Amino acid sequence: MKLTDRKTEIVNVAATLFKEKGYSAVTMRDIAQAMDIKAASLYNHIKSKQEILVLIVIEIAEEFTNVMNEVVCSKDSAIKKIERIIQLHIDITLRDSNALACLNNDWMHLTDSDLEYFIKMRNDYEENFKAIIQKGIQEGDIKDLNIDVIIFSILSTLRTLYIWYNKTNKLSSKALTENMVKVLLNGIV
Amino acid sequence: MKLTDRKTEIVNVAATLFKEKGYSAVTMRDIAQAMDIKAASLYNHIKSKQEILVLIVIEIAEEFTNVMNEVVCSKDSAIKKIERIIQLHIDITLRDSNALACLNNDWMHLTDSDLEYFIKMRNDYEENFKAIIQKGIQEGDIKDLNIDVIIFSILSTLRTLYIWYNKTNKLSSKALTENMVKVLLNGIV
Repeated sequence: MKLTDRKTEIVNVAATLFKEKGYSAVTMRDIAQAMDIKAASLYNHIKSKQEILVLIVIEIAEEFTNVMNEVVCSKDSAIKKIERIIQLHIDITLRDSNALACLNNDWMHLTDSDLEYFIKMRNDYEENFKAIIQKGIQEGDIKDLNIDVIIFSILSTLRTLYIWYNKTNKLSSKALTENMVKVLLNGIV
Repeated sequence: MKLTDRKTEIVNVAATLFKEKGYSAVTMRDIAQAMDIKAASLYNHIKSKQEILVLIVIEIAEEFTNVMNEVVCSKDSAIKKIERIIQLHIDITLRDSNALACLNNDWMHLTDSDLEYFIKMRNDYEENFKAIIQKGIQEGDIKDLNIDVIIFSILSTLRTLYIWYNKTNKLSSKALTENMVKVLLNGIV
């Protein structure tokens, strides 16, 4: 989905405010104020706070979904597929950590079909990841360990990366990816 | 700190409510109601909601701190030390996931010296963990990878274990520990 410049600006300002104060505490008036425009003018571009949440959360979830679908369909090995998924999480984290914070903290404020759609994408994502690991185990590329522990361990790290990355002496994207791939795939010992 | 039976009951009921509704949304009246006693009677045992939060969060933080101090002082290898820390997180997760949820979600509602004390314990914990990894790298037991990535990767998994563990087909404590140690230390490839 391509947004107009103004809509992109609204979404970015809102994502920052949601991260700082939490979705529920932010009003359309707050968003207008942060953009230095009148609330009435904001409504020319966006219907509601809910519409902004949908733009942020569904947009990112669709990006994860689309890349995961490409990865699943590719002829790469399981290891190469997992590396591409790690790279995907790192790329989105470095590009748009506010939107990721919003996805993680506020997805439950989505309603009706948006909420259903989001949950379906999230479940499909985990199922696809599981299928990749399972195939890797079958083919002897991945160790035969408990698959739920493997998935939880990798996803818990990738999904909270945005919290940690902003607090550290920033590694370059390349160094972060290299180290993360080694730590998550080959272990530290 | 040893609590009376009644205090322990209050703390357990409160931790469950804090987890369900969030600390800010729970009142002393809610806690009394959940225990089927009068609010006035609750105040015979506990001064305030803040006192309950301190009992929950500081208690668990001190347990992490005490075991970490023992581990640091022991003559074990770096690997063995990390295994003991993984075991510590798993033991507390299986015993008291509500208190861990409270620690993770509500520690920022602590005030003044309690808040300072908590933050100091958390920082010391991470510094001690870092020192263990650093020594392991120096001695050649642990790979020479970026130390912040190693620590973040392990702690992000251990600290969110309580969210995941309640949603899965429960593994036994033994199977969980074995798999987690292998995944986090030796990797999956």
